Amino acid sequence: MIDFNRHPDGYHHWQLSIDGDVAHLRMNVDPEHAFKAGYELKLNSYDLGVDMELADSIQRLRFEHPHVKVLVVGSAQERAFCAGANIGMLGASSHPFKVNFCKYTNETRLSLEDASQHSSLKSICAINAACAGGGYELALATDEIHLVNDNNSAVSLPEVPLLAVLPGTGGLTRLVDKRKIRRDRADVFCTMAEGLRGKKAKSWGFVDEIWPKSKFADKVQDRAVELAKTVPDKQGNQAGDGITLEPITHERDGNTYTYTHVRVDVEPDGRLATLTVKAPEGEQPKNGEDYEKAGSSAWALKCYREIDDAILQLRFDHEEIGLVVLKTRGDRDAILQVENDLWADKDHWLVNEILLQMARTLRRWDLNARSMYALVDKESCCAGAFLEMTLACDRVYALEDDDVKFAIGPLSNGALPMSHGISRLENRFLSTPEQATKLASEPATHDVYDADEAGLVTFLLDDIEWDDEVRIALEERVSLSPDALTGMEASLRFGGNETCDSKIFGRLSAWQNWIFQRPNAVGPEGALRRFGTGSRPDYDARRV
Amino acid sequence: MIDFNRHPDGYHHWQLSIDGDVAHLRMNVDPEHAFKAGYELKLNSYDLGVDMELADSIQRLRFEHPHVKVLVVGSAQERAFCAGANIGMLGASSHPFKVNFCKYTNETRLSLEDASQHSSLKSICAINAACAGGGYELALATDEIHLVNDNNSAVSLPEVPLLAVLPGTGGLTRLVDKRKIRRDRADVFCTMAEGLRGKKAKSWGFVDEIWPKSKFADKVQDRAVELAKTVPDKQGNQAGDGITLEPITHERDGNTYTYTHVRVDVEPDGRLATLTVKAPEGEQPKNGEDYEKAGSSAWALKCYREIDDAILQLRFDHEEIGLVVLKTRGDRDAILQVENDLWADKDHWLVNEILLQMARTLRRWDLNARSMYALVDKESCCAGAFLEMTLACDRVYALEDDDVKFAIGPLSNGALPMSHGISRLENRFLSTPEQATKLASEPATHDVYDADEAGLVTFLLDDIEWDDEVRIALEERVSLSPDALTGMEASLRFGGNETCDSKIFGRLSAWQNWIFQRPNAVGPEGALRRFGTGSRPDYDARRV
Repeated sequence: MIDFNRHPDGYHHWQLSIDGDVAHLRMNVDPEHAFKAGYELKLNSYDLGVDMELADSIQRLRFEHPHVKVLVVGSAQERAFCAGANIGMLGASSHPFKVNFCKYTNETRLSLEDASQHSSLKSICAINAACAGGGYELALATDEIHLVNDNNSAVSLPEVPLLAVLPGTGGLTRLVDKRKIRRDRADVFCTMAEGLRGKKAKSWGFVDEIWPKSKFADKVQDRAVELAKTVPDKQGNQAGDGITLEPITHERDGNTYTYTHVRVDVEPDGRLATLTVKAPEGEQPKNGEDYEKAGSSAWALKCYREIDDAILQLRFDHEEIGLVVLKTRGDRDAILQVENDLWADKDHWLVNEILLQMARTLRRWDLNARSMYALVDKESCCAGAFLEMTLACDRVYALEDDDVKFAIGPLSNGALPMSHGISRLENRFLSTPEQATKLASEPATHDVYDADEAGLVTFLLDDIEWDDEVRIALEERVSLSPDALTGMEASLRFGGNETCDSKIFGRLSAWQNWIFQRPNAVGPEGALRRFGTGSRPDYDARRV
Repeated sequence: MIDFNRHPDGYHHWQLSIDGDVAHLRMNVDPEHAFKAGYELKLNSYDLGVDMELADSIQRLRFEHPHVKVLVVGSAQERAFCAGANIGMLGASSHPFKVNFCKYTNETRLSLEDASQHSSLKSICAINAACAGGGYELALATDEIHLVNDNNSAVSLPEVPLLAVLPGTGGLTRLVDKRKIRRDRADVFCTMAEGLRGKKAKSWGFVDEIWPKSKFADKVQDRAVELAKTVPDKQGNQAGDGITLEPITHERDGNTYTYTHVRVDVEPDGRLATLTVKAPEGEQPKNGEDYEKAGSSAWALKCYREIDDAILQLRFDHEEIGLVVLKTRGDRDAILQVENDLWADKDHWLVNEILLQMARTLRRWDLNARSMYALVDKESCCAGAFLEMTLACDRVYALEDDDVKFAIGPLSNGALPMSHGISRLENRFLSTPEQATKLASEPATHDVYDADEAGLVTFLLDDIEWDDEVRIALEERVSLSPDALTGMEASLRFGGNETCDSKIFGRLSAWQNWIFQRPNAVGPEGALRRFGTGSRPDYDARRV
């Protein structure tokens, strides 16, 4: 089991310091504190543990330090800004781990971009030395890249020439789609192990500013202060105080993980897991001020942080699980009340952060490389964002019963967008967009018959059919090829629109998955295995 | 060497008949005429040879039978409309062949959609019996799908449950992106080996019309006649006559293929091929009427048909070639004259077809899974669509010399769109769209210094550098991992916009490439190898 909780007091790899509205996060990877045994984290190279601290930092800046307007990401090491993902770690990892590692790091970088776009937290990357691979991909996720102009400091994506894999953390997509770098220059850059320095890096668009070494720290600081002035104050945050993010904990008893609002039951023999999410109980905050008082114990924040953790546990620790069954439980009205209150105060800084956290959690759910079926029965609480989670599933099985309801809340109207930028209702009704508009703009509780009529249900089953049909459906799903399902689900879940984010997960990840399987990368004579051995890789020259 | 020429007189697998403005193309695959030895084409299953005849039919309808307004695609066999790609063929094929086969069949289906969109040739699929896999993917590429309503005739995509691969000819993307079928229904459909029949197939949106068997032929024919009435007449085609498409021939002498306007020099040891394309010589047609007289010998048609053939030869017969070097030769003014004349008469039916053929050829070039470098020197003819081919390359090396020119013609302004719907200039200048607009809207001849300034050149080299730098560049490229380059190029070549076409090639193909490598599909215990043996596949259950 992986503990995803981190806290700045216990960071091994980053130094977080805050001065007024500018924060500095300096990478200083401890080579001895690798996440797994068997490799050393030299030259600020990173592994999952390093990225977990980065993800934690971004979360804490959002929630605990809302007065921070600019984050400067730098390095505390003289010789390296960041050497990228650790090669020893990649070479020694299983295919599923490599893919899940890349996905997690992508999600971390997207959370930085999300903070810039929606949380008034801008970021600057201050590259003081060599910056390679995943290091430069991290830079690409910030708003501005500043580079020391000297003979040593270069930005590079050396994965293709050195390792025969792609830059796996969204780099290629961010080059041409985010920074809109000319494709032939991107091509040249991605095949040069040594990368680009100084003026050329700037004139070709790979960095935004270059400064002499002697002035670098000052220039970056000046720019951070200036940039902070352009960032509006956060509503309801006059005092600048945040809340404290308490750790997410669960008890594990055999195959059951129990959180406060979430429960996971793993059935390894059936290759199934059931994710049960629970509506709020008891009094909940009514507005932003109340939420500030409640801190991270409020259901709206804690529940989704728990769901997030549960998804990660399943991804990393239960590769054999092919299907996640979603069950919702609790009081529909309680969820709708919470969501209506959140929506009414959505401009309040903390409410905004809570909504963004919900949205990110739901996107992580959409991107789960497992089949997902929702079961909606009499005990279900298919309301608001729990309905969104239901719609994110590949199929919705609903019991034909007067007590079964589907309640659309205020957040289904675009507040919780998918990776490709549209809502789950829009994504579901690509052929009848007016249906998406109608359902979202008139939040209402539908009985199961109406819900089925409206297109929210895949299979409506009566009492007599329910047990058998559901059991057979689950068994059938897990009997299919896990690989074919992953490719199929990635193709069917995201219709219509595309964004930089969805290109990263849909296109770039798919190519990387392929390359991660190919002998030219991972075979005994492949580049990933031969890197650092002194022997050159031996490639099968056939193009596909 | 594969001969891609086909002619209806020699078809083994299809029957083409034309009655007024409606054509019928009936699939009747001869089991004994497989493209390669080792499998039998039962139940109208197909292989590359079958698809080459389909591609030929569409081409001939466009050029030879321009009066045809509706194509009805059906089957001449009672028991099967089409069983999809032949499993024996897939199981016995190498990974590169499978991928190239899928790409070719995708391009064929896209040419049918292109004809509907741009050539006033609509299509109806008349499904008289079982229609599975690639058969249904063909149906998805038509404008309307009609299905016999009986107990046997179903549409299905059984690849995931039966073969552990994806429907490989664009099917998944067409379900959710073209037909906009609800994603949960698409999910159910793609996991049901038996598919959907009758009313359910229609109500879920998988077919457009269902008819009883007794009335099927008449109803489809009535609809075809009715649909034809809505299709406008083609300009300049009052008599309804077409031109004759003569075969494309080349002479092969060792590693050199010589066509009339195209030459390919393969250097297996260097893993290089040089594609040399030549501008027109002598008098060329001035307008649509002239082109009708000239027929398929006119440079504008013949040259691009030859390029198309050369690309296919390289793809299928030279897997070991990692880099294609583009050289353009001949008279710039001659190309510009031809293109200006074409553009001036672009609404003429044959001119329209010629322009569309050029556009399809250039898209096939963009989608080449090989590195592509353009060399522009004093002998080059970097003009018009040859400039487009140059811009399609991953890099442009140009000689610093007063005689080296880049001439933008009238077709660079959107007449030859890439798969993702934008022009090559727009794709190149994503960050400065005004630059794309300026260059395209004021066609002009630029010297190499201006061209470099304008962003058309990757590397400008002087006389002294040229030979060595180019040689090193070529050697370096072919030393890199072919797989990593394929993934990198697929990610960098297509920035910005996405379309159904680009999702098919970028996203769906990448997932399929991955799945085609995985033991669950192609291993000794995988579904593709075990299919038909009576033993069930044995899957590695780990999700990635």
